[in-house]
Amino acid sequence: MHTARFTLDPAFTVGEVNPRLFGSFVEHLGRCVYTGIFEPGHPTADDKGLRQDVLDLVRELGVTAVRYPGGNFVSGYKWEDSVGPAESRPRRLDLAWHSTETNRFGLSEYIDFLRKIGPQAEPMMAINLGTRGVAEALELQEYANHTEGTALSDLRVSHGDKDPFGIRLWCLGNEMDGPWQTGHKTAEEYGRVAAETARAMRQLDPGVELVACGSSSQSMPTFAEWEATVLKETYDLVDYISLHAYYWPENGDLDSFLASAVDMESFIDNVVATADHVGARLKSKKKINLSFDEWNVWYLPEWEARAKTFEQDDWPEAPACWRTTTASPTPSSSARSSSPCSGTPTASRSPASPSSSTSSRRS
Amino acid sequence: MHTARFTLDPAFTVGEVNPRLFGSFVEHLGRCVYTGIFEPGHPTADDKGLRQDVLDLVRELGVTAVRYPGGNFVSGYKWEDSVGPAESRPRRLDLAWHSTETNRFGLSEYIDFLRKIGPQAEPMMAINLGTRGVAEALELQEYANHTEGTALSDLRVSHGDKDPFGIRLWCLGNEMDGPWQTGHKTAEEYGRVAAETARAMRQLDPGVELVACGSSSQSMPTFAEWEATVLKETYDLVDYISLHAYYWPENGDLDSFLASAVDMESFIDNVVATADHVGARLKSKKKINLSFDEWNVWYLPEWEARAKTFEQDDWPEAPACWRTTTASPTPSSSARSSSPCSGTPTASRSPASPSSSTSSRRS
Amino acid sequence: MHTARFTLDPAFTVGEVNPRLFGSFVEHLGRCVYTGIFEPGHPTADDKGLRQDVLDLVRELGVTAVRYPGGNFVSGYKWEDSVGPAESRPRRLDLAWHSTETNRFGLSEYIDFLRKIGPQAEPMMAINLGTRGVAEALELQEYANHTEGTALSDLRVSHGDKDPFGIRLWCLGNEMDGPWQTGHKTAEEYGRVAAETARAMRQLDPGVELVACGSSSQSMPTFAEWEATVLKETYDLVDYISLHAYYWPENGDLDSFLASAVDMESFIDNVVATADHVGARLKSKKKINLSFDEWNVWYLPEWEARAKTFEQDDWPEAPACWRTTTASPTPSSSARSSSPCSGTPTASRSPASPSSSTSSRRS
Repeated sequence: MHTARFTLDPAFTVGEVNPRLFGSFVEHLGRCVYTGIFEPGHPTADDKGLRQDVLDLVRELGVTAVRYPGGNFVSGYKWEDSVGPAESRPRRLDLAWHSTETNRFGLSEYIDFLRKIGPQAEPMMAINLGTRGVAEALELQEYANHTEGTALSDLRVSHGDKDPFGIRLWCLGNEMDGPWQTGHKTAEEYGRVAAETARAMRQLDPGVELVACGSSSQSMPTFAEWEATVLKETYDLVDYISLHAYYWPENGDLDSFLASAVDMESFIDNVVATADHVGARLKSKKKINLSFDEWNVWYLPEWEARAKTFEQDDWPEAPACWRTTTASPTPSSSARSSSPCSGTPTASRSPASPSSSTSSRRS
Repeated sequence: MHTARFTLDPAFTVGEVNPRLFGSFVEHLGRCVYTGIFEPGHPTADDKGLRQDVLDLVRELGVTAVRYPGGNFVSGYKWEDSVGPAESRPRRLDLAWHSTETNRFGLSEYIDFLRKIGPQAEPMMAINLGTRGVAEALELQEYANHTEGTALSDLRVSHGDKDPFGIRLWCLGNEMDGPWQTGHKTAEEYGRVAAETARAMRQLDPGVELVACGSSSQSMPTFAEWEATVLKETYDLVDYISLHAYYWPENGDLDSFLASAVDMESFIDNVVATADHVGARLKSKKKINLSFDEWNVWYLPEWEARAKTFEQDDWPEAPACWRTTTASPTPSSSARSSSPCSGTPTASRSPASPSSSTSSRRS
Repeated sequence: MHTARFTLDPAFTVGEVNPRLFGSFVEHLGRCVYTGIFEPGHPTADDKGLRQDVLDLVRELGVTAVRYPGGNFVSGYKWEDSVGPAESRPRRLDLAWHSTETNRFGLSEYIDFLRKIGPQAEPMMAINLGTRGVAEALELQEYANHTEGTALSDLRVSHGDKDPFGIRLWCLGNEMDGPWQTGHKTAEEYGRVAAETARAMRQLDPGVELVACGSSSQSMPTFAEWEATVLKETYDLVDYISLHAYYWPENGDLDSFLASAVDMESFIDNVVATADHVGARLKSKKKINLSFDEWNVWYLPEWEARAKTFEQDDWPEAPACWRTTTASPTPSSSARSSSPCSGTPTASRSPASPSSSTSSRRS
């Protein structure tokens, strides 16, 4: 048997940790929202239906940026369904997770949830670039962030949200490289729509931070070429490129599973290389940061059972569909971790591990 | 004079005839709908305005699949205009046929018509991919087919249609290769939008059968290249590629006209070859079936007179514009036959004739 | 010192002057509309709020075609916001000029303004191809021009405009080559959407005259290649290609500024050459005309001060932002001149000067 040892000493400081490393993700998926963070009638629920027991745990975790509302869910998301009096919100089919979305929890409730976590929690809102485009992105941005005095901002005020939501961090769609994505796009198509959406959103607010979709995993057949094409179209217009990764024991191979960090590190290295290559071609001094905004370990059998029901004409509300058996940074059974963060293109680039530091700030 | 003879004997069975071979087509064009199948006030009209005399003839013909609502009409079609209380439906300009569409006959009336034909009649619904896209296709599909419990399905119920329409067969647009089509597309553009619409519609219902638009006729300059490009994008996502053909005596040449089946046969052969070529390149075991969903013989003078009025600012309701002087499988003066069917890529591929078997099931 | 002399003599007739040479431009920009031509409460305002003093000056100028509503403004323009009872019109953020648009002046008021100028004034309406497409263009065209008897034309009548607006001249978007344009497009993307919008608008009315967007200035990096690509897609479908040019003294160099006509002339020559090149490749006998529909001289310091505020979260109504210190064909401080006109591809092509004849009719 081989023996390995390593030493951790607080004297060896690599760098400051970006607070966004402790970001998380709330998707309208399974029981993440409904009976997860939001459950009117639960003994600990406050007047808005937020579970205090969950909020306490979230606060304890020190969660920072919380990505919302998806994930694949966002490619069918119509923001206007999710605002206004809850009783008049429409019930919709959610194609991503084959369920019925009641919209009882929506944009306002999400912001309320963040405010109750505490001041370090910040919104990270994904927009629908699957079945929508520039016009609707601008409408959401104006509804959410403009103070008052226009039809859309006054609508938000009339919905009881006098204060604008101040959403600064936006995801330009979700996993647009995935054929499972409603409105899936080629890299060229996505690069163009992301570029024009970014331009328009910056016209409304030059201070936004924008995340372009990278690959859904390093194993995607389009990996690296996707990033190169998307960044060629968006380099000057976005701040981040996203990475997503999920790990599970394959064929009971625990050793490989425990070594998942090796894949994650190579993923980060390869995206950094691709982004810097594009920057070099464009003769740009700008560096693109990494937003590792979905990763986790998975326990698949329950999901596989649930996915089989997608063939059936059965659209339950908030079905149990996912169980993560390892520690997860968010309290819901279906939560996945999210961290818009950055990789170091220099020699000090530190090894990444899925449980803590995916990367450090790029300089 | 040459003499030819051929023998028909029921003992020589080539194969089973697909019932869809006896499909038909109802388009909002001229008098096909209004004063054709639908004419409130007509002596034989039932309480919904359907003409019983016409229904009797349609039943006698044994019509199966009925394609609707177009044709070119569909590229301006807004499904939501055609549902709900008839008196509140909007009047629209129909650019395809330069007329005014009252929407008195719509989606619900079409399904009622099918149900009254009999159990063998099935809907074949075309969606608007000229001026609309994925989002609206999904809305129509949910309104039509989802049982209940969502805003769109409950809207259908509130319109008096408790039972879902069960539309299984869908055309992904109509004649998108034709420059006359509102929202005409290149093969690449159409292939992409058809692919993503197909993916999304299958998310809502994996059981749908989907028809991609092939060429509007074999004489289109883009013929065959169109099919190859469209199928390259959609091969795994669609079930059928469409063929359209119309024949008329040119310069009074009756012999050529009577030999139109030669063109039709070569058309079928060439589309089969193209589809199989794409399958070969993709190393796919799947075969694409043929949907010969528009063909007929035409008598053109009346149409040409009508088409001249398109230059004028005159938008009549249900104008007389077409007269088919030969037998037609649907009773309306402007009807054209429709049969989603299949060709045989093997030696048993049978000769096609425009009056009966355009092709047989592909194995 | 060099001395130059030239002789003007009415005996030397080059050709007839196209009345559209005296066209102008009203954009929702700064104070062009609000407190420019429209100012309810002004001592000279009529019952619709139009300033009679301004109208008198406009009539004196003999203004013909008046382009509207932009300019960059049009890429966020929703025509339906600008019609109906003024008090119910929504307030919108205008991203182009970082201001709040009240929509108190809209489509009906624009037509009223034209009618009050006199019979020689004709509308030249730009449609939004930045954040909208074919469907909305058709809706605007039907609302504006269809007599009555459809939902959209009856809506116009219900808004008090029984007579259709008779808009014959349409701009297919505005400056779509400019990265500042909301919904900016590549030449290929724009050429395609312009082609299909043109086709569809001609289905509604074969008599429309259509202007495709050329370059925002001769100094654009895409100049000439843009025109070639756009015209390749639209040659048979449009009548005009646009040119835009603004001049100002650079580094106080008055001599160069006064020689701006040299740039304008080369701009015209180069666009004519490009258009004729495309025509030659297409073996077309048709000639594309020029629409020099934005040009002027600028005094920039005030604009530069205003543009700096775009970084701030400040969205004033009708802010002062532009001052043209030289003669301008429209009375507002922010007006720019507009003339859809034509160049001569023959030896009789006359030199252009920014103050009068940019070009003459192409034969």
